[in-house]
Amino acid sequence: MDTNKVWEWTTEEFLTVSSSSSPTPGGGSVSAYVGALAASMICMVANLTIGKEKYKEVEPQVKEILSQAEMVLSLLKTGLSQDIAEFSNFMAVLKLPKSTEEEKTVRTEKLQEVLVSATDTPLGISQNCYKILQLAQELAPIGNKGAISDVGVAAYLAESALKSAMLSVDINLPGIKNEVYKEKVLAERTRLFEQAAVLCAETVAMVQSRM
Amino acid sequence: MDTNKVWEWTTEEFLTVSSSSSPTPGGGSVSAYVGALAASMICMVANLTIGKEKYKEVEPQVKEILSQAEMVLSLLKTGLSQDIAEFSNFMAVLKLPKSTEEEKTVRTEKLQEVLVSATDTPLGISQNCYKILQLAQELAPIGNKGAISDVGVAAYLAESALKSAMLSVDINLPGIKNEVYKEKVLAERTRLFEQAAVLCAETVAMVQSRM
Repeated sequence: MDTNKVWEWTTEEFLTVSSSSSPTPGGGSVSAYVGALAASMICMVANLTIGKEKYKEVEPQVKEILSQAEMVLSLLKTGLSQDIAEFSNFMAVLKLPKSTEEEKTVRTEKLQEVLVSATDTPLGISQNCYKILQLAQELAPIGNKGAISDVGVAAYLAESALKSAMLSVDINLPGIKNEVYKEKVLAERTRLFEQAAVLCAETVAMVQSRM
Repeated sequence: MDTNKVWEWTTEEFLTVSSSSSPTPGGGSVSAYVGALAASMICMVANLTIGKEKYKEVEPQVKEILSQAEMVLSLLKTGLSQDIAEFSNFMAVLKLPKSTEEEKTVRTEKLQEVLVSATDTPLGISQNCYKILQLAQELAPIGNKGAISDVGVAAYLAESALKSAMLSVDINLPGIKNEVYKEKVLAERTRLFEQAAVLCAETVAMVQSRM
């Protein structure tokens, strides 16, 4: 299967290729797709709220939530495509020659670049999953009661996608030499994990009180 | 989009239809798909372990894990299709006539049947996600180190899919009159939540120790 055409694969093919020994799509890509599914649940509940007389008062807020969720969904789709590209970039750098000193220097530099890029991509996926959690928390008290459980689904899935994308950060970070960059990423990792757990618990509690 | 053909939709269409105000695929279906993606990560890591000299000793165990993960993946696919069918069944029962006493009796009985079925389906999805967590725990200490983070991805995603599918159980259970059934489901719900949290934490810890 051509990974450049991942958006043309059927839902069944996506499962089949993910299951195979082909290294892409791997955990980062799958996490991005789950984050996008979480975003789609926010969009669905927002779409089921907008235009309903009963929810007229909250409509401007819900429209804003929908618009943001659509944007984040699109960013997570880009994240998935990037995650697949990172893998080929990484493999290409590993194949660079390392016979002479000059070749070794170039290869080491390129390897550092590709490691940073392969850290930034899953970190971005995690950050976008965090945005979905924020949108879930906003929508939980005001979204259509008839579909409110799906805001809970969005929260659960976004939190797990955030954590699972971060495993790709954990793989690449130890190889990076820039200590300032590493510290910044680790601080962001801690912040996202802590705040995501709070947002998820609060959202699910609100959802369950309205079910 | 024809929901009977959900396995022929592209990955992009699945996101688009899930985002729309069309009630299916909803949270139950999306949870089943995420569970199937978790299963696919177990299959991938197993496939990357089998046939490697370095992992020859654990190969029989890993082959057994692969075979079970493939089976659970297939059950989760069936669960998704069933979840979509439950919704149309439910809507069909709601539309039954209720003018005469006899019609009301028939409608009430059918409603109870469909509520039980619409509880059993997401409960089955949760139980299959739990099986993925068990397989993740088995694979974490013996799977190919080079892809071990994806076993962590499987654990995170399976736990959240278990919890998010259970929200569909929470919606339907209050309407069911059979108290024996309700108690049995609530006990299973508690068991799955508690043990899933333990399995997920243990698996991620093992994964991180091998990364």
